[in-house]
Amino acid sequence: MNILLIIRVISILLIIVSGFMLFPVLFAVYYGEFQIIEFFIIPIAVAVVFFILMKVIASDIPRKDLSTRDGFLLVTLSWISSSFLGCLPFYLSGAIPSIADAFFETMSGFTTTGASILQNIEILPKSILFWRSLTHWLGGMGIVVLTVAIFPLLGIGGLQLIKAEAPGPSVDKITPKIAGTAKILWMIYIFLTVLQTILLMAGGLDLFDALTHTFGTLATGGFSPKNTSAGYYNSPFVEWVITVFMLMAGMNFILYFKLITGQFQNIIKNSEFKAYLGIFAAATLIASVNLYGKSYITFADSVRYAGFQVASILTTTGFATADYEKWPMLSQIVLFIVMFVGGCSGSTGGGIKVIRLTTLFKQCINEMKLLIKPRGIFSIRIDQKVVSKKLVYAISGFVILYIFLLLLTTAVVASGGHDIVTSLTTALATVGNIGPGFGLIGPTENYSFFQDYIKWFLSFAMMAGRLEIYTVLVLFLPAFWKK
Amino acid sequence: MNILLIIRVISILLIIVSGFMLFPVLFAVYYGEFQIIEFFIIPIAVAVVFFILMKVIASDIPRKDLSTRDGFLLVTLSWISSSFLGCLPFYLSGAIPSIADAFFETMSGFTTTGASILQNIEILPKSILFWRSLTHWLGGMGIVVLTVAIFPLLGIGGLQLIKAEAPGPSVDKITPKIAGTAKILWMIYIFLTVLQTILLMAGGLDLFDALTHTFGTLATGGFSPKNTSAGYYNSPFVEWVITVFMLMAGMNFILYFKLITGQFQNIIKNSEFKAYLGIFAAATLIASVNLYGKSYITFADSVRYAGFQVASILTTTGFATADYEKWPMLSQIVLFIVMFVGGCSGSTGGGIKVIRLTTLFKQCINEMKLLIKPRGIFSIRIDQKVVSKKLVYAISGFVILYIFLLLLTTAVVASGGHDIVTSLTTALATVGNIGPGFGLIGPTENYSFFQDYIKWFLSFAMMAGRLEIYTVLVLFLPAFWKK
Repeated sequence: MNILLIIRVISILLIIVSGFMLFPVLFAVYYGEFQIIEFFIIPIAVAVVFFILMKVIASDIPRKDLSTRDGFLLVTLSWISSSFLGCLPFYLSGAIPSIADAFFETMSGFTTTGASILQNIEILPKSILFWRSLTHWLGGMGIVVLTVAIFPLLGIGGLQLIKAEAPGPSVDKITPKIAGTAKILWMIYIFLTVLQTILLMAGGLDLFDALTHTFGTLATGGFSPKNTSAGYYNSPFVEWVITVFMLMAGMNFILYFKLITGQFQNIIKNSEFKAYLGIFAAATLIASVNLYGKSYITFADSVRYAGFQVASILTTTGFATADYEKWPMLSQIVLFIVMFVGGCSGSTGGGIKVIRLTTLFKQCINEMKLLIKPRGIFSIRIDQKVVSKKLVYAISGFVILYIFLLLLTTAVVASGGHDIVTSLTTALATVGNIGPGFGLIGPTENYSFFQDYIKWFLSFAMMAGRLEIYTVLVLFLPAFWKK
Repeated sequence: MNILLIIRVISILLIIVSGFMLFPVLFAVYYGEFQIIEFFIIPIAVAVVFFILMKVIASDIPRKDLSTRDGFLLVTLSWISSSFLGCLPFYLSGAIPSIADAFFETMSGFTTTGASILQNIEILPKSILFWRSLTHWLGGMGIVVLTVAIFPLLGIGGLQLIKAEAPGPSVDKITPKIAGTAKILWMIYIFLTVLQTILLMAGGLDLFDALTHTFGTLATGGFSPKNTSAGYYNSPFVEWVITVFMLMAGMNFILYFKLITGQFQNIIKNSEFKAYLGIFAAATLIASVNLYGKSYITFADSVRYAGFQVASILTTTGFATADYEKWPMLSQIVLFIVMFVGGCSGSTGGGIKVIRLTTLFKQCINEMKLLIKPRGIFSIRIDQKVVSKKLVYAISGFVILYIFLLLLTTAVVASGGHDIVTSLTTALATVGNIGPGFGLIGPTENYSFFQDYIKWFLSFAMMAGRLEIYTVLVLFLPAFWKK
């Protein structure tokens, strides 16, 4: 284990994270929140001191490759250290006076969960709210994918990191060089950010509102600077823009690369993309028909609210335009079931992910065919390619582990005396990086009432869910620490 | 497809089922319920006529082996036809005036689920209640395992049927001949029935109460002739007898065979058995500590109620001695999580089953080890034997399918306007063959309020769950019906 090298890399990462704190400082100046500025300067100073310290201590360590194991530890420590550094503005400024709360909120931001402990969001300084939304944007494509472009400077290859870090079971090789890949992905990300911001401003939002909602959308995060979330604007145009961009954020970003290079066939034929749109369309249709005449007078409104909410939960964003806990039960269950799905691989979305469910669904069909023809050979094909048994194995293992973690989280939440619906959907909403759920954590509620030990555990659950579970849980394996 | 032969076998099966209707007739005579007798005689007559008809029509069909496909169809049709025949006494006598209700209750009996639509059980004639409990006992070891001993008369091998029918992923070969195996298992079953009946009578129950509760216990069914279930007697002795026998019914019956033949080592070292007892002990301990001082004054009472309820849910029996919906939330969640587990393979219990979860848990650990050592080879060992990849594949497929069916059932129940907890735990309680759940189907409630279409669907869900899902779902595959 190259502990020193890992800490050195983290010190670089923290410098980058702290660098982004200059953006909320700009807003602090613009909105005249001068008394807040120091609470961003302190963490920046902490990061700089830590960086210099590590540069002195670890300047002469060999620039050798990080092993896979180092990668797992680095990824997990990245999220933990970023969240500790990132929570300082909230904590120091008194915006969030409890450290458990401040850490939870920041981890929720960096993991693009969007679960909040804030009871009254709008009374907080704008600069603080901007930082809160910015953690989404940074977490969205992954702090580590960001730093992948930096690793070559350290002589680190990094493919093993993408393996550990990138959301979803597979990463197509866009370009041979990972750093190049990371740059292209970030350019796409920035382009989409600019595009959505412009569209939201065209819809009447000011720059601050447009940017923060864009961050929440593209990262599939869900933090809003408004107490009533995206429903605040009550504008069909704004809602449809967010709906479409949530769905775009839940797509595999590799598809945008293919779009740029004109490989349209690859997009249309992409199994995961088709299944993803199919699930969205089916869920929206069922909910719309169910809502029509019951919760909404016109069918257009039923589609508008159902589409937004299905996209929000499916992509694990968590924005709300309706209190869906007041919807008829079938629509609620549709959202509940969609909580198990999640976005596509290679997207900023969380959850189990569509590609995994598609693969396992095909496996189930194959198992049944095998019962009829015990000597038959049935392989799983995704996008005309045979999925190796090994990969199907890994995917099954993932889903089982996901369910184990869900049940464990449910038990931990319930130990605080909370009811089944709250406990179970809190587990789904944190492990799946969604944000809101049902019961006491519905779309109009928040996580403030949980006991501190539950908040710490949920911070862990959000991180484990965001890092595809294995990355974090592997650290608990005794074999991991053996030479 | 040997349709005629399948129907012929079913006609034999129905004769056997109708033969068991003579037992409730005995109770009808004893309790002076003479007006009820005809409602047992009618279905017996129906079965006899059907049998003679099939004997005439299908007397000259060749006595060839049934194929695996025939087996699946036969098993599924067995449960459906038995439930139709078995529901006649309820329906004709007016005890259950709705056909949807009567069929549901009977399917619940034969699948050893124990979910009931009865609102006042105790007002029904004793003979009707005895038949209700007897469906458990018959279903318990499987109507088809029963008829396995009959198949040799037809020249049918039957191993493929055990494969389709026997609960759990594997059937050890006790004796080379399936018919012999079936006989030994039934002798063990009858011995345990006699033993528990005697013990319950020693605890103060009359023969009727002792027998019906024994049927409900050993089949892991859960029907009780008392409105307040096993809690009616308020006797620690009776409750502990039932607790121990529920746990014994949830064990792999092969272990009893090993016990008889003195292979103690095999029992103590049995991975599934150890995991099963471990889960029971851990869940009981957590619930007992949680209940102590909150729901019960003494720790002994906490253990008594927690142990009974954990055993009841874990083994998928469903008896109740406490309204666990009034327990503190942690204890409720323990029961909720235990709903996912189920009994051991080769037991009368339902659910996912301990061996499957043990295997998948080991697979998850292996997947993590593989992340650390990508070139390592890690195999799963159960009882010192390597589990083939093919079997692990089949098990993963099963669990995924189980979860799909749970979510589908949840959606169907919710479409009737029922809340999340009710919908979800109804799915768990029916697919897992447990009986009671949470919400509106708690231990003091029943299934009477559901819409008819939901009752029909739940009858299907109970059957699919009982027949290890694949057996039933495979019939929906177009490939199944192709030549």
